[in-house]
Amino acid sequence: MSLQPLLINGEFRAAANPTGSYHSTNPMTGEKLPWSFPYSEWDDIEAVLQGAADAVAELRQAPRQLLAEFLDAYAASIEGQADALVETAHQETGLPAPTRLRAIELPRTTDQLRQAAAAVRARSWTQATIDTAANIRSCYGPLPGAVVVFGPNNFPFAFNGAAGGDFAAAIAAGSPVVAKAHSSHSRTSQLLAESALEAIRKTGAPKGLVQLIYRFKPEYGYDLVADARVAAVGFTGSRDGGMRLKEVADRNGKPIYLEMSSINPILLLPGALAERSQEIAEEFFTSCTMGTGQFCTNPGLVMTLAGEASEAFVEQSAALFEEGAAGVLLNRGVSEGMDESLKILSGNGAKVVAGGSAADRPGFYYRNTLLTVSGDEFLSNPEAMQTEAFGPSSLVILAKDAAQMEQIIGRFEGNLTGCLYTDNGGSDDQLYDRLAPLLRAKVGRLLNDKMPTGVAVTAAMNHGGPFPATGHPGFTSVGIPASIRRFAALYSYDNVRQHRLPPDLQDKNPTGEMWRLVDQAWTQADISA
Amino acid sequence: MSLQPLLINGEFRAAANPTGSYHSTNPMTGEKLPWSFPYSEWDDIEAVLQGAADAVAELRQAPRQLLAEFLDAYAASIEGQADALVETAHQETGLPAPTRLRAIELPRTTDQLRQAAAAVRARSWTQATIDTAANIRSCYGPLPGAVVVFGPNNFPFAFNGAAGGDFAAAIAAGSPVVAKAHSSHSRTSQLLAESALEAIRKTGAPKGLVQLIYRFKPEYGYDLVADARVAAVGFTGSRDGGMRLKEVADRNGKPIYLEMSSINPILLLPGALAERSQEIAEEFFTSCTMGTGQFCTNPGLVMTLAGEASEAFVEQSAALFEEGAAGVLLNRGVSEGMDESLKILSGNGAKVVAGGSAADRPGFYYRNTLLTVSGDEFLSNPEAMQTEAFGPSSLVILAKDAAQMEQIIGRFEGNLTGCLYTDNGGSDDQLYDRLAPLLRAKVGRLLNDKMPTGVAVTAAMNHGGPFPATGHPGFTSVGIPASIRRFAALYSYDNVRQHRLPPDLQDKNPTGEMWRLVDQAWTQADISA
Repeated sequence: MSLQPLLINGEFRAAANPTGSYHSTNPMTGEKLPWSFPYSEWDDIEAVLQGAADAVAELRQAPRQLLAEFLDAYAASIEGQADALVETAHQETGLPAPTRLRAIELPRTTDQLRQAAAAVRARSWTQATIDTAANIRSCYGPLPGAVVVFGPNNFPFAFNGAAGGDFAAAIAAGSPVVAKAHSSHSRTSQLLAESALEAIRKTGAPKGLVQLIYRFKPEYGYDLVADARVAAVGFTGSRDGGMRLKEVADRNGKPIYLEMSSINPILLLPGALAERSQEIAEEFFTSCTMGTGQFCTNPGLVMTLAGEASEAFVEQSAALFEEGAAGVLLNRGVSEGMDESLKILSGNGAKVVAGGSAADRPGFYYRNTLLTVSGDEFLSNPEAMQTEAFGPSSLVILAKDAAQMEQIIGRFEGNLTGCLYTDNGGSDDQLYDRLAPLLRAKVGRLLNDKMPTGVAVTAAMNHGGPFPATGHPGFTSVGIPASIRRFAALYSYDNVRQHRLPPDLQDKNPTGEMWRLVDQAWTQADISA
Repeated sequence: MSLQPLLINGEFRAAANPTGSYHSTNPMTGEKLPWSFPYSEWDDIEAVLQGAADAVAELRQAPRQLLAEFLDAYAASIEGQADALVETAHQETGLPAPTRLRAIELPRTTDQLRQAAAAVRARSWTQATIDTAANIRSCYGPLPGAVVVFGPNNFPFAFNGAAGGDFAAAIAAGSPVVAKAHSSHSRTSQLLAESALEAIRKTGAPKGLVQLIYRFKPEYGYDLVADARVAAVGFTGSRDGGMRLKEVADRNGKPIYLEMSSINPILLLPGALAERSQEIAEEFFTSCTMGTGQFCTNPGLVMTLAGEASEAFVEQSAALFEEGAAGVLLNRGVSEGMDESLKILSGNGAKVVAGGSAADRPGFYYRNTLLTVSGDEFLSNPEAMQTEAFGPSSLVILAKDAAQMEQIIGRFEGNLTGCLYTDNGGSDDQLYDRLAPLLRAKVGRLLNDKMPTGVAVTAAMNHGGPFPATGHPGFTSVGIPASIRRFAALYSYDNVRQHRLPPDLQDKNPTGEMWRLVDQAWTQADISA
């Protein structure tokens, strides 16, 4: 079987000296799919780096609207081959084709690309800041190199290294992207790259603006990140993998944005359970099993006060988890990871009350799994009890009182999200006021009465959070314009002559609508002489 | 002689178990000053960390204006003991008392504190972002821990760990500060801490809001940075020291903001030299010897085209450097560092055309030093030729043509600033257009026809730049509001009930003047229902 080609500098090419290969696998059957991909030798990576460097040089001379045109054309091209993309992603990931992939994730992806295009046109993302008296002016501008994006397994479109949020942000900021295809959906990534190439050709964008590579040995990943032609890195995946890349990027003084793990604690306060226990159990079940639990924002940890109401909630939830069909996981590794994580949780005192093992059928199906643990047991080993079971699984902590809840929150690691469910009558308000500030400090996004699995693409989103959920608490990977600024440098101009300034900083507002911070006030107006 | 006390949790205390001591030294004479300071055992650091943790908890309950009141009171208290501060700083650093310290640096420091206070009141720094349709709202908010600030030797007030830019930014963002006094001006730092304590008492701010420690063994510095009660770090100093702290902070997932080194290249284009060579030589000399060359933005590298005009410029400059009095350096280490750096530069082909050694007199005086090197020689060892000679020294590269200038800029490391001098008639415009984009990518602040040593405290400033000048190209340590956001986390609120939102995110604008990004437009208005 021939190996699928890489996208290098504007053409799909066979790997120069592949050192091995791997297959796409259908997780619904466990069978191999008809696509095989190379492990690259350094030759391929060197070619990609050179393509990226050429693209950086070309972008420096390109008209400002080019990247917007490319992003829009790319979105249209993706829509043009939506059937093939959805069908292929379905085969590679097992994610439901009509609902999740077609109706939700694909439109989300093209919407992100178009929002990024709009941001390139509107220019407000650069936060142009002008001190007219001192004639000092600053704005965010492109990094002098490529961005390498390592996408995760769980969103074949919306977080894909060649099409997702980090990708759109890096392109909008003005860098070419080197995408590392995830092994769980390499063919999907390849199809996306085909669309990207079509858009490159259509708009005359630099050939190396988007490039795609598959696997290579880990050392090459470190050398890639360390290479002078790479300016920044985006990574979504495991904590181990993320920390290894982070070490290399940090040592070389390169920004790296990581999303590494999160179990997204949900606090169910007593009034809420008294008011609507069954309703919350249903929301919880739906959220926890969405995408077979393989969401970064999956509610993997729930805390309630021990007692009759929480026992009832656990029973109601367990019934739903048991009744719900086993879902398909992305690959064998995720299934094995579930086994290992559940072993750690059980080994430290958690009790399985639903599911707990892979389903007895071909493919990588896993039973919806619910565990419970007492607050005392949680506190006896809080680190192990926060082991992420990536899949349709959650651990309910039954705390003995409010003081123990506080103590437990104090032991929470950094997470993307945290949520408090409270009643509508106000009986939970006092406890909310005690717990919310503690939880606030541990998460990027705080929710009320809502499960965290929906991540709206809006300027007010924070899909980020304290370490080890990410590498820095001040950045979000979802939401424009903030996600774009991650891949930019701050450039100040001091006493630079007017005609030499970038248009964003000249007296005349370059779009007539761009927001600029002029003498401490945000305005869309020109600067009058 | 008794050892000076540390400021720990609201009181000046003797070190618990000092492991040694060091003296302040007068660099103008080389003699010991009457103050001796302890090397701390871990006991002191543990006490400081506990004080900081208590302050964090207290700040969570404090009224929003408290930190503004503290910052203003601190500025006033500094002014109240200005005479003692200026005299002590002069004795410890040798910096001129009436001009530099009294007229410039002290007012700059109190201005920074007051700008930070104004930012706390105005709230616009939090960049509140509201999506009304989705009811998702975000803003920057306090980190859940202290900020440790390691200040540099060269600005005893304006970058002091207990009073400078990082300090003001961290306090404004809502964190207590643990300041490490620099050994070159520990008594000055202690006096500042006395003012801070006075302001704490006057405003009822948490006792541990500002704490001061002196030296300790390096391992304790790493343990301090790694401690869970510390949320972020600010460091201004040497590249070696910065990189070691960075490694620890990075491994522990903590933001660290570093300013490590910069030689601030100046490109003198031919038209500018033809037009005003003597004038530029004078600007260059003044800038390069300001503060005896011990500015982060000191013009340590100049590039011109080889030829008669540049020979004349070198002669004019050398005459000024030779005529100028030897300046006093901050301490013996800086003088020894100059010797070592000049040895590296000379050893790699640079030719000394003025100065080149310490002055023959007591104290730590150094002769103004000018070196030249050909473009070829520079390119034969660009790394060594970019050795920072921290002091009144600069290296002039005589490039053979424009192409070589491009090549040389391509080898520049990341710097805080870069500058191009051009003529007024337009004859340099073409060359400017070739070189400026290359230089732009290597520096944080780009200047025209102006030396870089002035760093205005304005929102449009970037006192930052690409690695290794700093650790991240997107941040500035000078300029409000951007410097504040470095020490903050991004907090998003999703579906959170109105009365539970922080005031910055409620429908009603909390100040009536705060700028917020509401549905993609910046506004000071309330949100109407």
